[in-house]
Amino acid sequence: MYRTNTCGELTMKNVGQQVTLCGWLQRSRDLGGMTFVDLRDRYGITQLAFNMDTNPALCEQARRLGREYVIQATGTVIERASKNSKIPTGDIEIEVSQLTVLNESKTPPFTIEDNSDGGDDIRMKYRYLDIRRSPVRRNLELRHRMAMLVRNYLSNLDFLEIETPMLIKSTPEGARDFVVPSRMNPGEFYALPQSPQQYKQLLMVAGMDRYFQIVRCFRDEDLRADRQPEFTQIDCEMSFVHQEDILNTFEGLAKHLFHELKGLDFTQFPRITWHDAMRLYGSDKPDIRFGMRFVELNVVAKGAGFALFDNAELVVGINAEGCAEYTRKQLDALTDFVKKPQVGAGGLVYIKYNTDGTFKSSVDKFFSQDSLQLFAQQFNAHPGDLMLILCGPAMKTRVQLSALRLEMASRLGLRNPDVYAPLWVVDFPLLEWDEETQRYYAMHHPFTAPKPEDESFLDDPSRWGDIRANAYDIVINGVEVGGGSIRIHDRTLQNKMFHTLGFTDQSAAAQFGFLMDAFTYGAPPHAGLAFGFDRLCSLFGGADSIRDFIAFPKNNSGRDVMSGSPAPISQEQLDELHIALTPQN
Amino acid sequence: MYRTNTCGELTMKNVGQQVTLCGWLQRSRDLGGMTFVDLRDRYGITQLAFNMDTNPALCEQARRLGREYVIQATGTVIERASKNSKIPTGDIEIEVSQLTVLNESKTPPFTIEDNSDGGDDIRMKYRYLDIRRSPVRRNLELRHRMAMLVRNYLSNLDFLEIETPMLIKSTPEGARDFVVPSRMNPGEFYALPQSPQQYKQLLMVAGMDRYFQIVRCFRDEDLRADRQPEFTQIDCEMSFVHQEDILNTFEGLAKHLFHELKGLDFTQFPRITWHDAMRLYGSDKPDIRFGMRFVELNVVAKGAGFALFDNAELVVGINAEGCAEYTRKQLDALTDFVKKPQVGAGGLVYIKYNTDGTFKSSVDKFFSQDSLQLFAQQFNAHPGDLMLILCGPAMKTRVQLSALRLEMASRLGLRNPDVYAPLWVVDFPLLEWDEETQRYYAMHHPFTAPKPEDESFLDDPSRWGDIRANAYDIVINGVEVGGGSIRIHDRTLQNKMFHTLGFTDQSAAAQFGFLMDAFTYGAPPHAGLAFGFDRLCSLFGGADSIRDFIAFPKNNSGRDVMSGSPAPISQEQLDELHIALTPQN
Repeated sequence: MYRTNTCGELTMKNVGQQVTLCGWLQRSRDLGGMTFVDLRDRYGITQLAFNMDTNPALCEQARRLGREYVIQATGTVIERASKNSKIPTGDIEIEVSQLTVLNESKTPPFTIEDNSDGGDDIRMKYRYLDIRRSPVRRNLELRHRMAMLVRNYLSNLDFLEIETPMLIKSTPEGARDFVVPSRMNPGEFYALPQSPQQYKQLLMVAGMDRYFQIVRCFRDEDLRADRQPEFTQIDCEMSFVHQEDILNTFEGLAKHLFHELKGLDFTQFPRITWHDAMRLYGSDKPDIRFGMRFVELNVVAKGAGFALFDNAELVVGINAEGCAEYTRKQLDALTDFVKKPQVGAGGLVYIKYNTDGTFKSSVDKFFSQDSLQLFAQQFNAHPGDLMLILCGPAMKTRVQLSALRLEMASRLGLRNPDVYAPLWVVDFPLLEWDEETQRYYAMHHPFTAPKPEDESFLDDPSRWGDIRANAYDIVINGVEVGGGSIRIHDRTLQNKMFHTLGFTDQSAAAQFGFLMDAFTYGAPPHAGLAFGFDRLCSLFGGADSIRDFIAFPKNNSGRDVMSGSPAPISQEQLDELHIALTPQN
Repeated sequence: MYRTNTCGELTMKNVGQQVTLCGWLQRSRDLGGMTFVDLRDRYGITQLAFNMDTNPALCEQARRLGREYVIQATGTVIERASKNSKIPTGDIEIEVSQLTVLNESKTPPFTIEDNSDGGDDIRMKYRYLDIRRSPVRRNLELRHRMAMLVRNYLSNLDFLEIETPMLIKSTPEGARDFVVPSRMNPGEFYALPQSPQQYKQLLMVAGMDRYFQIVRCFRDEDLRADRQPEFTQIDCEMSFVHQEDILNTFEGLAKHLFHELKGLDFTQFPRITWHDAMRLYGSDKPDIRFGMRFVELNVVAKGAGFALFDNAELVVGINAEGCAEYTRKQLDALTDFVKKPQVGAGGLVYIKYNTDGTFKSSVDKFFSQDSLQLFAQQFNAHPGDLMLILCGPAMKTRVQLSALRLEMASRLGLRNPDVYAPLWVVDFPLLEWDEETQRYYAMHHPFTAPKPEDESFLDDPSRWGDIRANAYDIVINGVEVGGGSIRIHDRTLQNKMFHTLGFTDQSAAAQFGFLMDAFTYGAPPHAGLAFGFDRLCSLFGGADSIRDFIAFPKNNSGRDVMSGSPAPISQEQLDELHIALTPQN
């Protein structure tokens, strides 16, 4: 080893020891008589001391070192004159007797500090320097630790991690596949997996019982903010289980992570049906760190001659406690917020419940104080509160109000990243109507089982929208961190499902034939769940962006600006693969 | 849960308990009064008993069950009348009171037994049935266990598992890349990694210090037997280490696996230089479970007028102990073996050291008994031994003799898969001459560092073949299970290396520019190693084929015969990717 110790471990109990450290020069301070160098490695920072009086040559050498030089220093651990209580090694320093420059460094294009002066683009281009910064390094350390915790937890429960293929068959249903031309099989392509869905179901048919895999998945989507073309899932599947067993097993995993990483212990996570989540929060991934549940107001809002309410399918609102003092300007800002194209509401009705017991609203013309009192009763509002109301088509209005609810919570500081509120959303609809193509799609995927009590609705297209699935999501702080379902294990039901989704026998066989074949050889009842591992890491890391938790992420155009990937390939490569580029129009 | 217990855990201490089991029907025996069903799951087999006298309806139901039906059975654990000591559950059976068919099964195309009647092709097509067989299941369980052992061992040594990208830039040096057309960046391609080599070196530049990853890699090669287009590596890299540190660290990992999986404890693994390995075994991955080291014979073989020896660069042989009684037929078979095109020798010279002390050789015409005695002295042979000798160009002859040595060991039963003989091969040549292209190639890869004492040879092309690298392989039982090197961390030396390999500044920059840039910002001394995980699993599993240790392997044409991948994709997909198929010629 080039070193005896790391830069993060020496303390007062090491005083007097002869040590050798290696690392990068974080900064140096030339105080004339003394030169101090902060030496940094993955484990911390240790101060090196050079004395101009006792060793002028070495001190001169130290003065010439630049930022990010890689150095090796040997010396004695001594107590510092002025201690730094902010770092674990702050009580000591190294009186250096020997110094070796292991490598020089150009001046880095941004500062290697917790708060860097580098913008996003430059830090991505020089990601290997960005990772030297503690916040990024800590994110990757957290990711490693989480992966180890997950693997050991599941392995102790008899789950086997089984690697499934990366070069698979393209199944164009769903998002777009990345494909890989096969040189050995001209005109044919592999696809990269969007998930190991079919393989994990095959493993259940194979009797493997409890499977997991922390696995890379790929989706060729037009990238929205914070989506990556390659991402990592904790992919899980179990046989001979009911929904209750799945929820308990993976709630156990989540609790284990909360306990180990955050010191938090939870009793049972709340559960809410998809229908209730939409009704009470306007979202299938409600943030329940705070209340502000929706209150439906049709009964008090309609019939007063206010056309907007009278004509609306739904009048619905939230009560912002203690916000009655909001100014005109603040209320205008909220109105502007809901009218943004991303939210899309026509306007916002407010009712202030003044501290003197009176009401002031934007609809005073239509509603008396007594009528407004009835609104207040619906909201269970108190003097000092502010009621905010939207109206229109039911589902659309709920989604708009959900945006306003989150906005109000942010303004009120109710979305503290150090507070964690997990819950299960269950009983998702099986099918989702698509206006554009005028057909139903599987809300999760075509292998999700309907609830047995709704199964008969499959025979009646007019009821398809009502079918509930044995499908569930785990949501933490308004973020969907995982989801899954009970799978169909019966071939007849699966065929019916394919027909419902518009597959012909032929097209279903072409895409899913081998899975359907497998189902004829004794498929057990099975179910599964997948966590988005990048997202889970960012949540436990208290950050919004998943990019911060990926060592070498891609930008929103799917580019790695550091390596310059993707890039053209040679004509020779194209020829070998039996493909040609087509002209751009 | 559909079950209270698994099929592998009930024993005499559970007698009297009411249990519910789920699994697959392995076989059933109708004995008239009683019907017995062997129920199988991942954990074992438990016998179900149905009594025609006490419950005829249920017994009738049991008789109708077919092989591989998925069933759920509830009943009482009772002591068996006739016990089966071969299985852990052999003392008990379940007196079934309730039986549910969870799914039916067609008759499987081969028997789900340890020794199946199914050939390789049919078992691959129905791999989900093949995995139900204990030998395959145990292989996947071993693989999981090994991955867990590796991860926990390295994690405890402060290694971080860091996921590197799968969609990277194509670097056509070395084997062929699989490429992925980018829809969002027309005319550009990602490549799938042949290894995370550059990324792990960047992580060292990034200060991450101790990295590992169990990671999928891809190589678009013409598949030889037992090669897979996608394979898994245990990829590792460390900073601030010398070769000695790397060898000790990963020898520690290998010893940990031997201890945990095999109960074997090793002292230090032997080390041999590449030069000695070639000289003594004719192989850079010698199988040292047995001796039979090469003995060079020029000094005794030349000058006797035997032209083949006289004209040969090298006369070299092995001593097969106790084989003097080999018949003419056996000796002919050995001669045929070395003359096979895959071996390519011109012929084989033998000398029998008869038990009466006389010699009988195929070159008696040229060598007297006294001369043959001199051969025997060189070999340190004893009466009863058989000396086998080849001659010709030195390196070629050594490789031929290596094949003969392994063949003899196999014939003599010296290659027991339950015996493990690991060793390190060190000091590989840095460069390898390629006759076809008349240039040197990097024997490992272009980032491997020469030994400091040989570095100056880089300035003298006539010495390039003599340069030794700080490169090492770990070999177990004649199989290279891992290899690595000290990396170049100095940009000047790296540039010199690129020039030696025929790169121009431009071509080096185009391919490795971002790594070279990174090296200007403080690259630490670093080194690494990668194990072939599939191969390591097969070695610990005592099998020859890596396919047996991969859940869903591909065949020698790179096909997954189960899913039918690769396959054509739609014109729409091709259009979106801005590529077209080119006609076949």
